Amino acid sequence: MDNIHIGLLIFPRMTQLDMTGPFEVFARIPNATVHLIWKRIEPVVCDTGLSLQPTTTLSGCPKLDVICIPGGPGQIDLMEDADVIGFVRRQGEQARYVTSVCTGALVLGAAGLLRGYKAATHWASMDNLAYFGAQAVKTRVCIDRNRITGGGVTAGIDFGLVLASKLTDTATAEKIQLYMEYNPEPPFNSGSPDSAPPAVLAAFNEMAKGMLTRRKEVTLRASKQMDGFEKK
Amino acid sequence: MDNIHIGLLIFPRMTQLDMTGPFEVFARIPNATVHLIWKRIEPVVCDTGLSLQPTTTLSGCPKLDVICIPGGPGQIDLMEDADVIGFVRRQGEQARYVTSVCTGALVLGAAGLLRGYKAATHWASMDNLAYFGAQAVKTRVCIDRNRITGGGVTAGIDFGLVLASKLTDTATAEKIQLYMEYNPEPPFNSGSPDSAPPAVLAAFNEMAKGMLTRRKEVTLRASKQMDGFEKK
Repeated sequence: MDNIHIGLLIFPRMTQLDMTGPFEVFARIPNATVHLIWKRIEPVVCDTGLSLQPTTTLSGCPKLDVICIPGGPGQIDLMEDADVIGFVRRQGEQARYVTSVCTGALVLGAAGLLRGYKAATHWASMDNLAYFGAQAVKTRVCIDRNRITGGGVTAGIDFGLVLASKLTDTATAEKIQLYMEYNPEPPFNSGSPDSAPPAVLAAFNEMAKGMLTRRKEVTLRASKQMDGFEKK
Repeated sequence: MDNIHIGLLIFPRMTQLDMTGPFEVFARIPNATVHLIWKRIEPVVCDTGLSLQPTTTLSGCPKLDVICIPGGPGQIDLMEDADVIGFVRRQGEQARYVTSVCTGALVLGAAGLLRGYKAATHWASMDNLAYFGAQAVKTRVCIDRNRITGGGVTAGIDFGLVLASKLTDTATAEKIQLYMEYNPEPPFNSGSPDSAPPAVLAAFNEMAKGMLTRRKEVTLRASKQMDGFEKK
């Protein structure tokens, strides 16, 4: 079997679990090479302080079979970063699967890769997708042709297993699930805005307000830039 | 509120998601400082190739309120590593919570910290716990007094949320769960040996045989050493 090149973009102030969840799955796919891609080969510091080491750069990265963009507060700046958006578009136009976890979907969107597609993202940023011509779908893993987008953070594990089954077969994905003992039992019922206690949801919204406002502003600007980017 | 020091041991050939799952939770606990601890401040390479950067050392680490040991193939060597076992015992004897994810429980066991306690670990290594005087419990998160041990790999997320609620309160843990959109929907039903298709379970056991045999051998030796370690 041919080697499968899977590339995950990593970047400052990303949410590390958006990446490390699916990474654990991808790295266990037979014949897969997983690349961690950033501008320079120097550690990027996640929103929670974890350092991650890139393995390749935007210019050094081989042609990818799968491109995957994680999310987190740091994705806001990426939507207006011409180097990143150019890289994502070039790779996305030729990849077998164009994918994201959490608000990484908005980077795909800014690169014009979700126009006319259904997509998922973190629940609190779902309404940003429409600016990029995508149809938001409130689902944990959204599959529309070769676009596969996961919901927020931990949805990356579900997404990773779905993608693993497509790249290999169901039995291989099930074996990885068994290794990872992915048999979840959340101790609380607060994993979505529909189930969270109203006071918890209100506290979250208050905490995230500044970030969500800025994300919306940049999404709006990036969506106006989208055609400009595309002419390059 | 006082600062809470949470220390996660990291080590070569660990399974990164054992650590990065609970890390995502811990780092979002108000007033928590999360330490990544290894012998030297140089990257450790996980079993899947991911590099992780320690933030402190065995000798430089402050007194921990929580000590947490992740698992993975690399934990086998730790069970006979006097420096690591000494560190885990010293910290464990004074910590508020002594915890693990996956086969990290066997490192707690080798340090004598699970004798007379109920504990969980990765399903495929569950029978090793008895060598260290622990009572294996087939559960996702096992709480026995101040010992809190998670099952395999992804159980670290459930474990992390349970611990967060104990260190703070339920509403804080629920807010973190909401941020992480931890509302899991595994695409397959293969997360435990009870649910996995028999052929998948057989393939896993065949793949893991060598590692599991070596783990059992070292567990046996380490359990005989346990009293020797304790006299130091």
